[in-house]
Amino acid sequence: MATMNTRYPYKYFTVRFPIERPYVAHVEINRADKLNTFIEAFQQYINRNDRMWLEMRHVFDQLSSDSSVRAIVLTGAGNRAFSAGLDVKQASTELFSDKGGSDAARKSFHIRRYIHQFQECLTAIERCEKPVICAMHGFSYGFAIDISAAADIRLCTRDVQFSVKEVDIGMAADIGVLSRLPKVVGNIGWVKEVALSARIFGAEEALQVGFVNTVYDTKQAAVEGSLELASLIAQKSPVAVLGTKELLNYSRDHSIQEGLRYTAVWNSGAIQTGDVRTALMSGLEKRIPKFEKL
Amino acid sequence: MATMNTRYPYKYFTVRFPIERPYVAHVEINRADKLNTFIEAFQQYINRNDRMWLEMRHVFDQLSSDSSVRAIVLTGAGNRAFSAGLDVKQASTELFSDKGGSDAARKSFHIRRYIHQFQECLTAIERCEKPVICAMHGFSYGFAIDISAAADIRLCTRDVQFSVKEVDIGMAADIGVLSRLPKVVGNIGWVKEVALSARIFGAEEALQVGFVNTVYDTKQAAVEGSLELASLIAQKSPVAVLGTKELLNYSRDHSIQEGLRYTAVWNSGAIQTGDVRTALMSGLEKRIPKFEKL
Amino acid sequence: MATMNTRYPYKYFTVRFPIERPYVAHVEINRADKLNTFIEAFQQYINRNDRMWLEMRHVFDQLSSDSSVRAIVLTGAGNRAFSAGLDVKQASTELFSDKGGSDAARKSFHIRRYIHQFQECLTAIERCEKPVICAMHGFSYGFAIDISAAADIRLCTRDVQFSVKEVDIGMAADIGVLSRLPKVVGNIGWVKEVALSARIFGAEEALQVGFVNTVYDTKQAAVEGSLELASLIAQKSPVAVLGTKELLNYSRDHSIQEGLRYTAVWNSGAIQTGDVRTALMSGLEKRIPKFEKL
Amino acid sequence: MATMNTRYPYKYFTVRFPIERPYVAHVEINRADKLNTFIEAFQQYINRNDRMWLEMRHVFDQLSSDSSVRAIVLTGAGNRAFSAGLDVKQASTELFSDKGGSDAARKSFHIRRYIHQFQECLTAIERCEKPVICAMHGFSYGFAIDISAAADIRLCTRDVQFSVKEVDIGMAADIGVLSRLPKVVGNIGWVKEVALSARIFGAEEALQVGFVNTVYDTKQAAVEGSLELASLIAQKSPVAVLGTKELLNYSRDHSIQEGLRYTAVWNSGAIQTGDVRTALMSGLEKRIPKFEKL
Amino acid sequence: MATMNTRYPYKYFTVRFPIERPYVAHVEINRADKLNTFIEAFQQYINRNDRMWLEMRHVFDQLSSDSSVRAIVLTGAGNRAFSAGLDVKQASTELFSDKGGSDAARKSFHIRRYIHQFQECLTAIERCEKPVICAMHGFSYGFAIDISAAADIRLCTRDVQFSVKEVDIGMAADIGVLSRLPKVVGNIGWVKEVALSARIFGAEEALQVGFVNTVYDTKQAAVEGSLELASLIAQKSPVAVLGTKELLNYSRDHSIQEGLRYTAVWNSGAIQTGDVRTALMSGLEKRIPKFEKL
Amino acid sequence: MATMNTRYPYKYFTVRFPIERPYVAHVEINRADKLNTFIEAFQQYINRNDRMWLEMRHVFDQLSSDSSVRAIVLTGAGNRAFSAGLDVKQASTELFSDKGGSDAARKSFHIRRYIHQFQECLTAIERCEKPVICAMHGFSYGFAIDISAAADIRLCTRDVQFSVKEVDIGMAADIGVLSRLPKVVGNIGWVKEVALSARIFGAEEALQVGFVNTVYDTKQAAVEGSLELASLIAQKSPVAVLGTKELLNYSRDHSIQEGLRYTAVWNSGAIQTGDVRTALMSGLEKRIPKFEKL
Repeated sequence: MATMNTRYPYKYFTVRFPIERPYVAHVEINRADKLNTFIEAFQQYINRNDRMWLEMRHVFDQLSSDSSVRAIVLTGAGNRAFSAGLDVKQASTELFSDKGGSDAARKSFHIRRYIHQFQECLTAIERCEKPVICAMHGFSYGFAIDISAAADIRLCTRDVQFSVKEVDIGMAADIGVLSRLPKVVGNIGWVKEVALSARIFGAEEALQVGFVNTVYDTKQAAVEGSLELASLIAQKSPVAVLGTKELLNYSRDHSIQEGLRYTAVWNSGAIQTGDVRTALMSGLEKRIPKFEKL
Repeated sequence: MATMNTRYPYKYFTVRFPIERPYVAHVEINRADKLNTFIEAFQQYINRNDRMWLEMRHVFDQLSSDSSVRAIVLTGAGNRAFSAGLDVKQASTELFSDKGGSDAARKSFHIRRYIHQFQECLTAIERCEKPVICAMHGFSYGFAIDISAAADIRLCTRDVQFSVKEVDIGMAADIGVLSRLPKVVGNIGWVKEVALSARIFGAEEALQVGFVNTVYDTKQAAVEGSLELASLIAQKSPVAVLGTKELLNYSRDHSIQEGLRYTAVWNSGAIQTGDVRTALMSGLEKRIPKFEKL
Repeated sequence: MATMNTRYPYKYFTVRFPIERPYVAHVEINRADKLNTFIEAFQQYINRNDRMWLEMRHVFDQLSSDSSVRAIVLTGAGNRAFSAGLDVKQASTELFSDKGGSDAARKSFHIRRYIHQFQECLTAIERCEKPVICAMHGFSYGFAIDISAAADIRLCTRDVQFSVKEVDIGMAADIGVLSRLPKVVGNIGWVKEVALSARIFGAEEALQVGFVNTVYDTKQAAVEGSLELASLIAQKSPVAVLGTKELLNYSRDHSIQEGLRYTAVWNSGAIQTGDVRTALMSGLEKRIPKFEKL
Repeated sequence: MATMNTRYPYKYFTVRFPIERPYVAHVEINRADKLNTFIEAFQQYINRNDRMWLEMRHVFDQLSSDSSVRAIVLTGAGNRAFSAGLDVKQASTELFSDKGGSDAARKSFHIRRYIHQFQECLTAIERCEKPVICAMHGFSYGFAIDISAAADIRLCTRDVQFSVKEVDIGMAADIGVLSRLPKVVGNIGWVKEVALSARIFGAEEALQVGFVNTVYDTKQAAVEGSLELASLIAQKSPVAVLGTKELLNYSRDHSIQEGLRYTAVWNSGAIQTGDVRTALMSGLEKRIPKFEKL
Repeated sequence: MATMNTRYPYKYFTVRFPIERPYVAHVEINRADKLNTFIEAFQQYINRNDRMWLEMRHVFDQLSSDSSVRAIVLTGAGNRAFSAGLDVKQASTELFSDKGGSDAARKSFHIRRYIHQFQECLTAIERCEKPVICAMHGFSYGFAIDISAAADIRLCTRDVQFSVKEVDIGMAADIGVLSRLPKVVGNIGWVKEVALSARIFGAEEALQVGFVNTVYDTKQAAVEGSLELASLIAQKSPVAVLGTKELLNYSRDHSIQEGLRYTAVWNSGAIQTGDVRTALMSGLEKRIPKFEKL
Repeated sequence: MATMNTRYPYKYFTVRFPIERPYVAHVEINRADKLNTFIEAFQQYINRNDRMWLEMRHVFDQLSSDSSVRAIVLTGAGNRAFSAGLDVKQASTELFSDKGGSDAARKSFHIRRYIHQFQECLTAIERCEKPVICAMHGFSYGFAIDISAAADIRLCTRDVQFSVKEVDIGMAADIGVLSRLPKVVGNIGWVKEVALSARIFGAEEALQVGFVNTVYDTKQAAVEGSLELASLIAQKSPVAVLGTKELLNYSRDHSIQEGLRYTAVWNSGAIQTGDVRTALMSGLEKRIPKFEKL
C-alpha cells in the first residue's frame, strides 16, 4: 500500500495523485484482505463510526472540484477482486437493528432515509465532473456492479467474474444498478436475465453486450490501459471534456429536444472559452495544445 | 394438447401449472393448426364472441396474482410457428365494419378505444408481476414480435423467422412493438430498418442485436432452456424477484434520479422482509433457502 | 456533378430526383474539393451570405412535404469523405467575431440563438417525415457524426473513418451528437469513450456497437445498398412508413405508456386508410400493391 | 329513491337515465342512511362480496361508452351529506386483516395491489370520456374530496362542509386527492394547509380558492344548476366536447409543447367530423344544431 | 391607421416602433372592419395567398431579435373587438377542401401538418424573447383567447366579452388554448367549464380567476396601462428581463429540480453581465441605470 | 435575542426548541440590525468564513431528522423585516471576484457550481421532512420570496411589503423563485408581472392570488397564528403528516398517473403503521390520540 496521500487522507481508498500522467488521479479500493468488500451501510448509518461508503463519496466530491484533476481511474487493490460486494459475514450478524422500533411504517421511514444516503455515495461518481474510468478484475459482485455502473467507462480483465448479486441475498438491488444498468447496456433482456438470476458472467459476455469497452489479459494491463485512456482524455480541453460528460449524462435522461435545449444554453457560456482557439491553432500548427486549469 | 387445466380453463391458451419445476407456469398459445395466428381484434371488439386477445389478458392477470407462481414461460404450440401474427385471411374479409358510421371523426373515436383495449391485452404481460420468458420458434411475425417485446426475456430456436410485419399490411404497428422495441434493443438504426422494411431476420441477427438472449438448436431445447431459466429465478426470494422486475421496468422509462427515488421508497417496505436473513443465513450455511409465498 | 435539379436548385447539395427507383430521392453533399466540410455556421449566422447549413435544412424540409418522395438517401460527393466536418482552416481565421460586444452575457445570448438555429438545420433530417438512410465513406468526422445521428439508418464502407471530433477543437459538441448518440447506440460506455477521446474508429467497430447497420466494400456498393433499402421501403404504404418513423421517434423519447397512448391516437386516423385493404388483398393475391401519394 | 334502472342496475349508485334533459345522466351515491359513507375498500378487496367501490368504477365505465350519454352529474342522496367519507365504525373493527401474514414486505405487496385497485375505481371518473359535474352538499369529507377531484367541475351548496380528512385517521391520503388537488387548485399553500390540518372549510373558501365553480343556496338548486350546466354541454357536438375533456386532461399533465403535439394528432382525425359544418351552418342560420351519436 | 412602418411592413398588423416610450413596441391587429377576425388558416395553408397567421408569426419573430425592442404590447384595432376569432362567414364557405382526397388517413396527415404550422404562428408569441402584454377589449372570442394565452400578461377593459368559442363550431380547440389555459389559470374546474360550455365571461370573472391581471375602464386606459407596464419592464436590464421570461416559461413545464438545474446553467453565463454592477451601483447612487442593447 | 440553543447553536438563526407547544420548532432569521439581509453567497463560496446560507441549510437538515420535531415555523427577527434580501452594500463592493480568471467559460463553470450550492441551501427547506410555515412581515424582498416559496405554507402581516426584486439588480433570479413561484401560485400572468417589474405588492394582493394563506394585523399575531397552525399539525400522526408533505411535493412535479403510482408504493409501507388504529380508536372514543416519535 502506498503511503497515505496527505491531500487525500482516506482509510478505505488510496488516492494516488499526482502521478506521472498529468492531470490523472488513481483511486483504489483499499480493503484487499477482505476482497474489497464493503462494510454494511445500514450499520454505518446507525453507528457512524466506520464509514466506508461516506469515504467514497468524499473522495469523488473532492476530486470533482480539484482543479488539477481532469480524469480518474478507479480500481480495486490486490489480485483477487475489484470488490466482492457486501461483507456478508459481518452483515449477517448485524443487519437491521431495531432502529425505528416495531412499527413497520416508522421502520420504513428510517430505511428510506438510509437508502437515499447510500445512493448519494454512489451518485458521487456519476456527479463527479471529471470522467471516471473503472477497471475491474477478479470478483466483481453486487456493489461492484452498482459502482461501476455509476462510472463513465468500464474496462476489465479476462478473468473477471461479474454478478448482479442482490437477489441472492433476498432483495431487489437499491443503490443504483437497477436504475443505471438499463441505461448503460441497451439490451434489456440481458439486463433482466442477469439481474433476476444473479448468475455469474465473464469478460467476453460483458464485452459483447457493451457493459465493458475493452478486455485486458491481466490486471496490470487493465490498470495501464485505464491510465492510458484517462491520460488521453486529460490532454484535451477540460472545458470540452467536462461539458461532454455533463451533456451526455443529461441527454441519457431526457428527450432529444430537451437535450438540444440544455446543450445550447450550456455552450452559450462554455464556447466562449479561449480553448477553442488554442485547440484550432494547435491543430493547424501540429502542436500539442496546453489548456489552463478549470 | 394437454387436458384443460381447471384452474386456468382457457381456449386459446394452454396453461400448465403446476409442473415438475416448482413455482413455474408454462403458457402455450394453442392454435397450432392456424400457425398460432391471432383472430383479428377489431372483429372481436365488435362481436365480443371469440376473444383470443382478452383470454391472453386474463391468463397473465391471473398468473400475476397467483401466489404459487414465481416465473412464467410463454411458447407457441406445434412445430411451425410461435405465432404467424394476424390471421390475415379471416381479417381481410371482415376488417373494419361500419361501426362509427361514415363520419371519420366518430370512426376514429371507436378505433382509438379498440386500440387501447388491444394494447391492454399485451401490456398484461409487462404488468404481470412475475418474470415472463418467451421462447420463439418458426414463424414469429407481427403480433409475435409485439408479444415478445412485452415479455422480460426472449429466447429462440435456430430456425426462427422474425418479422415486424405491420407495414406490409399498410399500417404502422399500434399494439406495442414500436413503443417497446427501441427500449428492448439499444440499436435504433436496426429497429428502424426492420420496422420500415418488414424484412425477415433470423436467430443470429436477433442474438447479435440483443433481441434474444440465447439461441437453441431445437424447439424442445428452447422450451427446456426457458423452463430451466424460469426455475432458477423461481428459487430466489419472490420479494427480490418481483421487486427487481418492477424496478427495472420503472427505471427503463424514467431518469436515473427518478429511478433511485422510486427504488428507495419501494425497498423501504420490501427490505423489511425476513427473506434477507433467510438468504444470508442459507448462503453462509450453504443451504438452499426456502421462501414463503407472496 | 449532375446538372442542377430545377426542382431542388441547391448549391451545396445535389438532389437527384426522380431517379430510376420510384419515390426515392438521393441527396449528396456537394463540396468534394473541400472533403465536404461545412462552412462555419457562426460566420454564416453573421454574414447570412453563404449558408450551407440553411441549405441542408431547406433540402430536407422540401423533401418532407414532397408527396412524390417516400424515402431518402444521403451521401457525400467524391471518393475521400462523407464529410470531414468543420472547415477548420476557414473557421480558425473567422471564428467568434465580436457580435455581442464584450459583455459575456450578451455574447451568450447571441451564441445561444445561433446554436438553436444550427441545431434546427440538423433536426430537419430527423423531422423529415420520410425515412433518411445515410451512407458514409472515407473521412466522417465531427459534423458528419452529428448529421448521421439525425438520420434514421446508417450504412458505411469498409474504409470509413469515424470520429466524434469536437473535443479536439476545445468544445463539447452542441449540434446534436451528444443528445442523439446515446439514443442511437445502446452502449453508453462506448459513446463516452469515443466522445471524450475523439479517437478514430472504423467500420467493424461501428457495426459491432450498432452505430451502422451494414458495412459495404466500396462507396459504390454502399450507395447502391442504400438505394436498394430505400427502394424497398418506398414500395410500402406511405401511411404505414411515415407513421412508423414518427411513432419510433416519439417512443424513443417517451415512456412505453406515453408511446402507447400517442400511437392509439395516431392510428385512430391513419388506420382508416384504404392502404390496409390494398395491402391485405395484394398479399392474398400475390400482387404488388400500389399506393396513392401522400 | 327511484326504481332501479334496468340498464344501470347498481346497488350503491342510482343512475337516472334517460331524464328530461337529453343526453344527460344523473348518478347518485345511494347510501343516505349512512351519510353516503364508503365501505372500507380493503375489506372488499379481501371479501369481494360488497363492493361499493367497484360499483362506482362500473358505473362510470359504462357511462363512458354509452353513446346516448354526453354529460354526467354526480350527487349524494339525502339531505345531510354528499359523502361523509369512510364508514369509520365499520372500518375500525375490520381494518387490516392478516392478509400477507406477518412479513412486512409481503404485506406491503398486498397493500400496494389493493391501493392500485382502489385508485382505479376513482380514476374511472377522470377516464370517463364524458364531462362529470359533481354537486356537493352537507358533509363532504375524505373520500368525498378524492372523488370530486377526479370529476371535471365541482359545484356546492352554501352549507357544505369540506375536509381532506385522511391525516385524522393516521394516514396520508392515497386514492388520489394528494395527486389531484394541486392540479385542481393553483394554490399549493392552501392545499398543504387543508391537507396537513384536516380542518373543515366551507363553500365561500372553496369558491375563493377555485375548488368549486359556483355556490348554491340549497341542494335542490345545486342539483338543478348542475343539470343545467350538463345540459348546456350536452347540446354541443360530442366530438368537440369529448375531445376538449381529453385534451385538457392531457395538457394538465404535460408541457405545452407536448400538449400541442398531442392536440394536432388528435384533431387530425377529429376535425374531419361533419359536426364542424353542422355547427357553422347552424350558427349562421341561427338554428340549434343537432349532432349524431358518438 | 398609422402609416405603414417600413421596418415592419405588414398588412394585418400595425407595428408602432419606435414610440415615445423607449424600447417598447406596440403591435395592433389591423382588421377592425371585420372585428379583427382571422382568416381561416386552412384556406391559407392551401392557397398561400393571404396569410394573416403567418404575418403574426413574422411580426413576433422579427421583434424577438430586434435588439432595440425590450417589451411588446399587443392590442386590436378599433372599438369593438380585440378579435372576434375566426371569420366564420368566410370559413363556412371554404372550409375543408378536398386536399388529401377521400382517404381519411391521407387527409389526417395534411390536417396535422397544417395544425402544426398554425400552432407555430401562435407559439411565436410565447417564443418571442421579449415580454408580450396583451390588452383586450370588446369581443375576444376563440382565437383571441388562444393568442392571449400565448402572451405573458393579459389586461382587459371592463366591457370585454371573453369566450373559449371552439366547441360552438364543433371542434376541440387545437391551436393552443387547451394546452395553455390550464397553465395560465390555476383553476382547472373553471377552465373546463368555460371550455366545455363556450359561455361568455366578463372582466370581473377573468380577474377573479387570474386570467387577466388588471381591468381598465376604457380601451384607451387599457392600452395606456399596458404601455406603462411595458415601459416599466423595458427600463430594466434586458439580460435580466429576457432571462426571467425564459426561466419562468421553462419552469412552468418542468419539475422544480429541473427548473433549478436549467436556471443554474442559464445564469452561469448571464450573470457575468456588467448589468449587475450597473444596477447595483445605480441603486446605491439613486441613479436610473442605463443598459446596453442585447 | 434568546440564549443560544445548545442543540441548535447557530449564529444567523435562532432555533427555539423545545417550546411550550409540543413538537413545534421556531426558527428565526437573526440579523435584525441589517434587516435580516443575507450576506452575499458568492463571497461566502470563495471565503468560506461567514456562511449564512450554509447555516440555513444545516438548520433545516438537522430539524428534518430530529425525531422530536413535527412542524416548523420560520420568521425574521425584529420589527422591520422578514428579510430585505441581499445585503446590497456589502455585495456591491465585493461581487464577482476574479475566481475563474478571465476565461468566460471557466468563470461560468465556477458560477454554476456556486449557484447549485446556493440553491441547495434553499432546497433544504423544501426537502425538510416536516412542514415549514413561513410568517412574513415588513420588508420581504428578493431572497425573502425565494425562501418563502420553498416553505410549505406562507402567512403574513398586513404591513408586509413583497418584491421579487432580482431584475432590479440586473439578473434573473436563480436560487429558486422562478422555478417555484409558478407552482405556488396558479396565476402565471401575475407571476410574470411581479417578476418582470419587481414592483412591490402587499398583503391583500398576496392573499388574493394565493401567495399567502392568511393575513394578520401584527407580527405578533402572525407568529402566534403560525405557531397555532404548526401545533395543530404537530398533533396529528407524524407518519400521516410527513407522508402528506412528501406526496404533495411529488405530485406537484409529476403527472397524476405518476403521482398515484408513487403514492401506492409509499403507503404500502406507511399504512402498516399502528397510527391508523390509534387514530380511528381515539376518534370513536373522543380521545386525543398520542403518536410515537418518528
